[in-house]
Amino acid sequence: MTSHTVEINLGSRSYPILIGENLLEQAGLINTHTSSKVMVVTNETVAPLYLQKVLDALGNTPKSSVVLPDGEAFKNLETLDTIYDGLLREGFDRGCTIIALGGGVIGDMAGFAAASYQRGVRFIQIPTTLLAQVDSSVGGKTAVNHPLGKNMIGAFHQPVAVYADMSVLGTLPDREFKAGLAEIIKYGFIIDKTFFGWLEKNIGELLARNSSAIAQAVKRSCEIKADVVAADEFERGQRALLNFGHTFGHAIEAGMGYGNWLHGEAISAGMVMALDMSHRCGLIDQSVCRRGSDLLAAAGLPVLPPPQINKSTFLQYMLRDKKVIDGSLRLILLDSIGQAIVSDNFDPEMLHATLEHFDAQAADI
Amino acid sequence: MTSHTVEINLGSRSYPILIGENLLEQAGLINTHTSSKVMVVTNETVAPLYLQKVLDALGNTPKSSVVLPDGEAFKNLETLDTIYDGLLREGFDRGCTIIALGGGVIGDMAGFAAASYQRGVRFIQIPTTLLAQVDSSVGGKTAVNHPLGKNMIGAFHQPVAVYADMSVLGTLPDREFKAGLAEIIKYGFIIDKTFFGWLEKNIGELLARNSSAIAQAVKRSCEIKADVVAADEFERGQRALLNFGHTFGHAIEAGMGYGNWLHGEAISAGMVMALDMSHRCGLIDQSVCRRGSDLLAAAGLPVLPPPQINKSTFLQYMLRDKKVIDGSLRLILLDSIGQAIVSDNFDPEMLHATLEHFDAQAADI
Repeated sequence: MTSHTVEINLGSRSYPILIGENLLEQAGLINTHTSSKVMVVTNETVAPLYLQKVLDALGNTPKSSVVLPDGEAFKNLETLDTIYDGLLREGFDRGCTIIALGGGVIGDMAGFAAASYQRGVRFIQIPTTLLAQVDSSVGGKTAVNHPLGKNMIGAFHQPVAVYADMSVLGTLPDREFKAGLAEIIKYGFIIDKTFFGWLEKNIGELLARNSSAIAQAVKRSCEIKADVVAADEFERGQRALLNFGHTFGHAIEAGMGYGNWLHGEAISAGMVMALDMSHRCGLIDQSVCRRGSDLLAAAGLPVLPPPQINKSTFLQYMLRDKKVIDGSLRLILLDSIGQAIVSDNFDPEMLHATLEHFDAQAADI
Repeated sequence: MTSHTVEINLGSRSYPILIGENLLEQAGLINTHTSSKVMVVTNETVAPLYLQKVLDALGNTPKSSVVLPDGEAFKNLETLDTIYDGLLREGFDRGCTIIALGGGVIGDMAGFAAASYQRGVRFIQIPTTLLAQVDSSVGGKTAVNHPLGKNMIGAFHQPVAVYADMSVLGTLPDREFKAGLAEIIKYGFIIDKTFFGWLEKNIGELLARNSSAIAQAVKRSCEIKADVVAADEFERGQRALLNFGHTFGHAIEAGMGYGNWLHGEAISAGMVMALDMSHRCGLIDQSVCRRGSDLLAAAGLPVLPPPQINKSTFLQYMLRDKKVIDGSLRLILLDSIGQAIVSDNFDPEMLHATLEHFDAQAADI
C-alpha cells in the first residue's frame, strides 16, 4: 500500500503524521525527529510486542524506556511520577525526546510528561491503537485523570512527529478496533458527509481489517482533525466540535468507572444521545438519527448507554465537564450529517427529555 | 509614594505589573483581571495576614481559597494535588481564575496548577515576598520540585496581571527580605551597571525598608527581567542570563535540603562562586569579584557556600541542572559588571579550581 503524510499546520509547532505500513522497521525513520537522548514510554501490553522494534529503529541514539501498567485506571499523577522518576534517575536533560508508544492513555500521559518535564521537552507519538491514531495522537492535547474527573490535569503540547503504523493494528483486539471506529465515524458526522457515506459503504472492509481501507480512514480522519486543530489550537471555539458525543460519553466512562467502557464505546452511545437531542431541538429528522445509529451498530458499537447510568448520574458528571464555560453547559449538536454546531443556548428541557428517553430504554432492557 | 506599572510585552500573553502601596485595599483593582469565579491559593503564614483583604477586594465575585502548608518542602506533586482537589470539589471550570497570594513557592505551585488545570486557566500573582516580586512573579515560569531535583516539573504560563504591593513587605522577616535583595543585585550584575551603582549607594536605605527605595528597586528589577523574558520567553537563549549564580545556588539548596538555605541566600553564595570562576576564566579582575561580594555582604547575604557542600556534592547536583543541554554544562559568567554571558565552552579545570577554592575556604571556617 502507499503511505500518506498529513501535515498539521501550527506555525512553529507544525508537524507531520506519517501513515503507512512497517514504519517501525524503517531504520532511521523515527530518528529523523529525535534528539540527543530518547525515553520511550510504553505499557506492559505493548512493550513485549513493539518496544524492541522501536529501540532498534533508534540505532545508536542513547535511549531508555519506562514500562507502565496498562489501562485508564493508571492514567493519574502517581503513574506520571514514575515517568519523571525514570527521566531524572537516568539524567535526562531538557534536550531529550520522549516517545509515546501505545494507545491514548500512553500518549496522553507521555505527552503531559513531555509538556511538564523541565517545562517542556520534545515529544513523538507512535500510536498503537486505531483510536489513538485518529484521535488522541493528533492535536496536542495531553492529560491525566483526577479522581474527580477525566483529563482534568494536562496541557497543550504538540508532538514533533506522529507515526501511524498500520502494521501494529494487527495485534489490536477487536473490541478496541471497533472503539477506534467510533471516532472515525464522528469525523463524518461533524464535518464530512462524503466521508460518512464512504464509511457506510466500507464498514465491512474496515471490520475485515483491510489495511488500505484503514489507512484511508485514518488519513481522512487525521486531515479533518488537523484542519479543526489548526483553526483553533487552544480550543476556544470550533475545536469543541470534536467533542460531539463526548459530554454524554465522558459521563458514561466516569459513571461506569474508567476502563470498564472503552472511550470509543462510550462516545458511540454518547453520539446516539447527541443525535436524539439534536432531533428534539428540531435540528435533524428522526431518519438522520437512525442513519447514525445504524452505522455505529454496523461497526459493532453500543447505541444505548449502560442501564447503570441514569439521568441524575449523567447530569452530575456533565455539569463537571470541561465543556462547562462560566457555569453554563455547552453541547455539540448536529445540524445535518457533516455539520455539527456548538450550542450553549439549547432548551434544558430537551436535555432532560433525552436523558429520560434513554433512562426508559435502559429500563426496558 | 507614586505607583509604577511595568508592561511585560509578550504579544497576546502581555500583562502589567502594578507596583505601589495598599494595592490590596483598592476595591475593584484586582477584580479588573479576574473572571467568573476565583480561587485564591495561599499558605498558612500569609493567610491570616492578607487572605481576607484579597477576598474583600474581590467583592461579589464567587470565590474560594486553598491554604497550603508553608515552605519549599511542600512544593511537590502531592501539595499540588490539593489545589486540584479544591478546584474540582467546588466545581471550578475552565473559565476560572487562580490567584497566587504568597511567595515564590505559592506562585510557582499556583501557577503550575493554573497552567495544568483543565489544560490552562487564568492566573494572577500577588507576591508577598520581595524575592517573588522581583523574580518568580515575572516571566511565567511555574513548577514543583521532584525528590530528584528542583523545579523539574512545570510549565511556562504567563499571569494576566501581577500586583506588587509594597505594604505587604512590612510583615516580611529580615532574613527573607535580604534574600530578595540577592536577586535584585543579580540584575545589576548581569545587565545594568548603573543600577548596580545605585544599589551600592542605596543598600542602607533598602535595608532600612524605605518604601520608595524598595519600589524603585522592584521596578528596575521587573523592567530588566521583563526585557529579558520578552526577548526569550521559552528560555532558548538570553533568558539563561537570569540564572547567574543559580547553577551553583541550586546545588547548595538541594544539597542542604530545600528550605534550609533560602533561595536568595544560596544564589548569593552562588554568584560569588560564579564571579570567582569568571575571574579564573580571565573575564574579570579580582577587584570586580571583591566589589560584587562586598555589596552582597553589605546586604547581609552569605558570600561563601556552606561547608557541608563539598566539590563532589556540587558536581553531582550541577550536572543534573536544567542548564545542562545535550549533556554539556552551561554556566553564566560575568564579562564585566552589567554584562553576563552564557558559556558552554569554558575550561572544566576552571570549574574544578573554583569548587576546590571554596572547599578550602569552608575547611578554614
